[in-house]
Amino acid sequence: MAGNQKAENQKADNQKADKRQYGKITAEILQELISIAGAAHVSADEEKLEAYSHDETSAEYHHLPEAVVTPTTTAQVAEIVRLANRERIPVTPRGAGSGLSGGSIPIFGGIALSLEKMDRIIEIDYENMTATVEAGVITNEINAASAERGLFYAGYPMSLETCCLGGNIAENAGGGKAIKYGVTGRYILGLELVTPTGEIVELGGKLYKDVTGYDLKQLIVGSEGTLGIVTRATVKLIGLPKAKADLLVLFQSPEDAIAVVPIIMTQGILPTSIEFMDRLSVQTSCRYLNESLPYEQAGAMLLIEVDGSHGDQVEADAIAIGELCAGHGALEVYIAEDRNMMERIWNVRRNIAEAFIVYSPVQSLEDIVVPIAAIPKIIPELERISAAYGMKIPCYGHAGDGNLHATLVKDPEMSMGEWFAVEKAALRELYAVTGRLGGKISGEHGIGIKRREFFLDLVDPVELELMRGIKQAWDPNGIMNPGKIF
Amino acid sequence: MAGNQKAENQKADNQKADKRQYGKITAEILQELISIAGAAHVSADEEKLEAYSHDETSAEYHHLPEAVVTPTTTAQVAEIVRLANRERIPVTPRGAGSGLSGGSIPIFGGIALSLEKMDRIIEIDYENMTATVEAGVITNEINAASAERGLFYAGYPMSLETCCLGGNIAENAGGGKAIKYGVTGRYILGLELVTPTGEIVELGGKLYKDVTGYDLKQLIVGSEGTLGIVTRATVKLIGLPKAKADLLVLFQSPEDAIAVVPIIMTQGILPTSIEFMDRLSVQTSCRYLNESLPYEQAGAMLLIEVDGSHGDQVEADAIAIGELCAGHGALEVYIAEDRNMMERIWNVRRNIAEAFIVYSPVQSLEDIVVPIAAIPKIIPELERISAAYGMKIPCYGHAGDGNLHATLVKDPEMSMGEWFAVEKAALRELYAVTGRLGGKISGEHGIGIKRREFFLDLVDPVELELMRGIKQAWDPNGIMNPGKIF
Repeated sequence: MAGNQKAENQKADNQKADKRQYGKITAEILQELISIAGAAHVSADEEKLEAYSHDETSAEYHHLPEAVVTPTTTAQVAEIVRLANRERIPVTPRGAGSGLSGGSIPIFGGIALSLEKMDRIIEIDYENMTATVEAGVITNEINAASAERGLFYAGYPMSLETCCLGGNIAENAGGGKAIKYGVTGRYILGLELVTPTGEIVELGGKLYKDVTGYDLKQLIVGSEGTLGIVTRATVKLIGLPKAKADLLVLFQSPEDAIAVVPIIMTQGILPTSIEFMDRLSVQTSCRYLNESLPYEQAGAMLLIEVDGSHGDQVEADAIAIGELCAGHGALEVYIAEDRNMMERIWNVRRNIAEAFIVYSPVQSLEDIVVPIAAIPKIIPELERISAAYGMKIPCYGHAGDGNLHATLVKDPEMSMGEWFAVEKAALRELYAVTGRLGGKISGEHGIGIKRREFFLDLVDPVELELMRGIKQAWDPNGIMNPGKIF
Repeated sequence: MAGNQKAENQKADNQKADKRQYGKITAEILQELISIAGAAHVSADEEKLEAYSHDETSAEYHHLPEAVVTPTTTAQVAEIVRLANRERIPVTPRGAGSGLSGGSIPIFGGIALSLEKMDRIIEIDYENMTATVEAGVITNEINAASAERGLFYAGYPMSLETCCLGGNIAENAGGGKAIKYGVTGRYILGLELVTPTGEIVELGGKLYKDVTGYDLKQLIVGSEGTLGIVTRATVKLIGLPKAKADLLVLFQSPEDAIAVVPIIMTQGILPTSIEFMDRLSVQTSCRYLNESLPYEQAGAMLLIEVDGSHGDQVEADAIAIGELCAGHGALEVYIAEDRNMMERIWNVRRNIAEAFIVYSPVQSLEDIVVPIAAIPKIIPELERISAAYGMKIPCYGHAGDGNLHATLVKDPEMSMGEWFAVEKAALRELYAVTGRLGGKISGEHGIGIKRREFFLDLVDPVELELMRGIKQAWDPNGIMNPGKIF
């Protein structure tokens, strides 16, 4: 079939691209980088390079850059990219390094271009309900700066206190509030982009609607830094909800908990979040935080939030959801009215990923997404894979979106060699099951380097060809975050 | 400057593209089309061609196709496109022909490919809260089919009873509910696309989140049929709001009415719609509908809707907005509780565009969008342009989004020659003012052929080059809806 032949050709092209001779950073080029960004913002010091060789993925993906550059202006970013394009030096843009797919790892060396010094909040525009910020701003700072005017940025992900907006845009990061408020892309009104050939372009503006040509902003969102470097963004702010309530609902088993999710979703009340945590996830995070929730012993729990502009309405919604859970197998339903208690519970949820990295450094944190009605079907498949490959697979995530962070964890007894063999095989099965259920391999963490080989196997060759067409047109020398996605 | 030089080169390229020798539809090709789609679905009959030579823009843009084809399956669409690509015959996809930018006009002849026979609702999936439909379905039929399960498709535009979903996707159509619910793009979860080279690809799925590669769906949304033909879509449905209230608020002048919009928007209540109508718009629509609103004599009015899941909350929101308007210059505030009365008022709003086409066929219906805080500044500019060029410029639209349908209307005394001269000059001024206020020339109707020349003048050359890079990569022969956007 033509499609298959194309896929083969593309694979071959891709391997060629991997081996392409990229330019090296010579002493002269380092000097040129210094003349652009200043000596304080360029380093080829080994210790510094080491710090930019990884994100939150496991060590097998890590790779040193040849130089780290931390520009302070968009003009500098553009000049660096023009230099890199001229010399065919890979440029790997980087925010906070909190990614979970290896997207900011400079796997071909070259320049690690960190936006960390471009972290200013340029404007909170109350009248237009927008915030304009540099890409390196820590996401939560947008909320901190806009809260006093009764506004907030609703697109933020769970890691909002450490991640930065540029990275959120690169991955189209999702958050705990995505069911009701959507993910990053919904809030991106304007972008300043440095293209892979080093030109600066402004996309969009403070506009709620805009069909003036192709929507390039939304193409950039989720393109993992392969189509250019976002240096500045204008995000939409919305009114802070005036009331909010959280429910903690305990279930006997993960299956019971997950089965209630599509039931809640179709009852006409739109929760802000429905987060799922299995027992192992809760225990691991509690241990990491030295926290003790009284509920650790349940087989699984849902953490459900509702918000709104009227306290009565929110309370009524919370009670209605609680009754629904009670009628569908919940062991216990707690409506947390104590703000401190709510914060403790959410903190447990937010720290699961980090807790697992600390307690089990060898693991594969996954990010599958399936149609919500298929969520109950995924749990027995995880159990089957877990048994077949002799590994623990704790599971937690944004159940209301169908986005689950199943995590493959190496058994301490297993050798690293064995682990690498079973990890790949188990991932292949997980992704195959996900595909059969109408799902995809990443809901919010991205493909990066971690899922690239699987993505290339699974993606429709026609779709891949369309993606590569864009990449080739925009980045003819393939310097912008090479080796990611495809 | 390099950018300007590029812009010049691009203009030259573009003119070349316009003159490119497209293939003609010979008797043999017509026969081939018949063998693909069946004799009943292919026509070169003059009367039939005439019916596919226009949309809702004025006569100057109309152009006959050489053949009309109405395929019934995606496989047929793909085969037609492959034939067209082989023979370099332009293909202009078409839905209901209700567009307002000439996007579905076959300006280079070739094939008018109408999706009108692909109008099936394939599935309402209650558990996943999605509808899967063919592209030719009338948008409102999705609502009709899902209402009995308490769901609706919230992305619909004002013309929902006549437009079709494929056209909504092509233009990223906005609606009267866009402030709260967003526009078409927010609801597109999956697309079946026939590419410009005639390949079929499925993008997305029944997934609320997905970062598995570039988001090509959102690139297709708003690309005006230049990047392929959408044959099928899966849209997200949401719960029908249980309560709703409408306010009709009268003001002395358009300035007074418009000034209150950013004030409402920043008070923490998110209305479903804030529609603005000046006196001339209301009068024209009332005359067309043989309707008599008691309020026609006010200088301008806002039609504001709030909805929600609790009647009490909706009532409280409506009262709060009413008080805000009363405190900011409203002459009168009516809260319409009578459903019949509400429907009559909305009907007046929905029919303004059509009423103006009937009463003043020579006109230019515009679609500018500005930051909400800039809305009050646009009204005096419209008055200035109106006086300077001796034309009426009634104005109405989605004030809560900053998206206004200022409409340039020819004076009956003016000759067509004079009109063409002043129309262009007035549009240039309108667009320049819009740009100075941080706005863009189209919020929801698209560029099409109507705004192409202005778009090419105003767009950043770097942005244009990025768009053209995608187009060239995907449609190397330039057959897919040529002459639109750029």
